Amino acid sequence: MVKYSATLDSTFGALADPTRRAILASLMLGEASMSDLAGPHRMSLPAVMKHVRVLQNAGLVAQKKIGRTRFCRLSPTPLKHAEDWIAQYRRFWEGTFDSLERFLSQDPPPEKQTEQQKENQSWPHRNRSRKTRSS
Amino acid sequence: MVKYSATLDSTFGALADPTRRAILASLMLGEASMSDLAGPHRMSLPAVMKHVRVLQNAGLVAQKKIGRTRFCRLSPTPLKHAEDWIAQYRRFWEGTFDSLERFLSQDPPPEKQTEQQKENQSWPHRNRSRKTRSS
Repeated sequence: MVKYSATLDSTFGALADPTRRAILASLMLGEASMSDLAGPHRMSLPAVMKHVRVLQNAGLVAQKKIGRTRFCRLSPTPLKHAEDWIAQYRRFWEGTFDSLERFLSQDPPPEKQTEQQKENQSWPHRNRSRKTRSS
Repeated sequence: MVKYSATLDSTFGALADPTRRAILASLMLGEASMSDLAGPHRMSLPAVMKHVRVLQNAGLVAQKKIGRTRFCRLSPTPLKHAEDWIAQYRRFWEGTFDSLERFLSQDPPPEKQTEQQKENQSWPHRNRSRKTRSS
């Protein structure tokens, strides 16, 4: 569990940068040398290599040396784990649960409502939350 | 596009921390006050509030004040956008493209292979990559 959590830390951390996401997008076309990857970016080769290293440390990119050239390739497993984690929340955006708009709407404070109104408002409450709100 | 990219930066950045992911998991049960959210964590209320602020800035959490208590709720749209972005790579882990193992396997360097062997090895190459490798 701790290991899985650390993996998600490094995956999401690596994806939180537009250059690194662009490098991954570039690798969708197939394997590429470091200079291939640096091509579209307005930055030095060492700066691009640094980004590739972050991706590699997160397991998102694999490298292989052929002669003097290092080739990079997309390594998709951490993306699958990240998607699996996000997918737990899918029911929230697919509208099975009541809408955020309802939560944010200007309902009267719960102490001025009937018990039924409280029950109807922004389900689901957790028990502890309901307790707090009716106190 | 730039705005979308900045949104992904903040979404993935917010998700790159285990406490923030735990707060989101807690909000799957329904809305919660700040002290509800702080409960399971071995950290001060201000430290938890700081994490909630990161989630709020990323649009992953919405807040509403009722009386003196601030209630938080999951705001799933950025998670949907993050999943949409990751889903572009799904074909890579679903095995439509050839395996990473093949790329990493100890094939002879391309200069010692026939043109046909090069063609068969770790498809797809991008054109520029193939050019580099046969030079």
